[in-house]
Amino acid sequence: MKPGKLYGVGLGPGDPELMTLKSARILSGTKLVAYFSKGGKTGHARSIMASYITDRHEEMPLVYPVTTEYPVNDPRYEELIGEFYKESSEKIAKRLRAGEDVAVLCVGDPFFYGSFMHLYRRLAGEFICEVVAGVTAMAGCWAAAGAPITWGDDILTVLPGTLLENELLERLKNTDAAVIMKLGRNLSKVKKTIISAGLLERAIYIEYGTMEAEKIIPLSEVQGDNAPYFSLVIITGNGRKI
Amino acid sequence: MKPGKLYGVGLGPGDPELMTLKSARILSGTKLVAYFSKGGKTGHARSIMASYITDRHEEMPLVYPVTTEYPVNDPRYEELIGEFYKESSEKIAKRLRAGEDVAVLCVGDPFFYGSFMHLYRRLAGEFICEVVAGVTAMAGCWAAAGAPITWGDDILTVLPGTLLENELLERLKNTDAAVIMKLGRNLSKVKKTIISAGLLERAIYIEYGTMEAEKIIPLSEVQGDNAPYFSLVIITGNGRKI
Repeated sequence: MKPGKLYGVGLGPGDPELMTLKSARILSGTKLVAYFSKGGKTGHARSIMASYITDRHEEMPLVYPVTTEYPVNDPRYEELIGEFYKESSEKIAKRLRAGEDVAVLCVGDPFFYGSFMHLYRRLAGEFICEVVAGVTAMAGCWAAAGAPITWGDDILTVLPGTLLENELLERLKNTDAAVIMKLGRNLSKVKKTIISAGLLERAIYIEYGTMEAEKIIPLSEVQGDNAPYFSLVIITGNGRKI
Repeated sequence: MKPGKLYGVGLGPGDPELMTLKSARILSGTKLVAYFSKGGKTGHARSIMASYITDRHEEMPLVYPVTTEYPVNDPRYEELIGEFYKESSEKIAKRLRAGEDVAVLCVGDPFFYGSFMHLYRRLAGEFICEVVAGVTAMAGCWAAAGAPITWGDDILTVLPGTLLENELLERLKNTDAAVIMKLGRNLSKVKKTIISAGLLERAIYIEYGTMEAEKIIPLSEVQGDNAPYFSLVIITGNGRKI
């Protein structure tokens, strides 16, 4: 029995039309599609490609046992989520060994902070894998905001909002352009730090970029301590404009 | 007369299948397509979408007056290229004012170090613009290399190879993951600096990523002082693997 092939399929930032032609082709041609979701919810990956899933497809939802119940560095979180990635990989491996191809749906780009990476590192040794790059959330957001991000020789730094305030401040002071991901409960810390760095004027907050609920506002106008999962802040570079 | 609409259409990293469904739709529906190219060459943007250009399309090549003849900080370069962007914008504005839509082809993502940005900043005030995000060259490359770039709370820094050695070294020492663009004549400096930073083991060199001439090799095996325009180095992050 020839084993099946594992696909990591980038779906882009949210707008289903921002999927690549290649991702669309692979999804049409692969019967078994797996995707991550939270308990009781459809999952964004599944929603993005809703119009591509037909009766010929078999769906394999991979339901996170926890999401934001524990901080990510809590050992209970690591244990539960590690066990989940392991089991999910085994579930997929079983089907691959049976000769079936499996397409794993990945919001954004599969290799840029993607959950898929935790399956990939367990499966890539045994199976043939093909990863289809996708438009990242940040690219979808800066396009939607009409905000060119890097000019000339600008340096871009992508920062998780989870960083400690001091470190975040140092990093922001030492870059030309920045993207701050993983806002969540870090939103007010991030805003405060951007103000300290003197960058508030160039900071744009984007929520649900390229999706129906898209909201684009200057960070200066953002209130509140909490941001949804699909949100980020961009600070545009100021490099050579010819 | 209602003015036309300006599109900045991300084409992705090189493989024509890595164009988004939206870019493909806009290119099919827009008669006038503009693209940058070097004198005497077709230009990569034009090549990527070759199979989408039909007899119904009108092509507007925008031919760079110079490319690598002068260093980018040479005032003659700035002057020539500035004049070129200005003239190109005027050429496009004329057609927009005549009510025609214009699609500008952009390799990679339009707002990530894109030449299109120099047209956009001149035209966005007067005309309605829509920018379609694309898969960046770096995302195409790390997917092709089978190399997940950022894990957990990794920081990613995107660096131009044009930086001075000392600065490049400091930046490399202070990031989790890195992408070094604009290699060109900076290749041996970049390699030497990555060795000094102790990162050679994790560094991958990719040339013409996702294109027919694609070459992916450990940076340690790269010889020579010069890299083609379509080349970059990635250094994968080492963050939380659950």
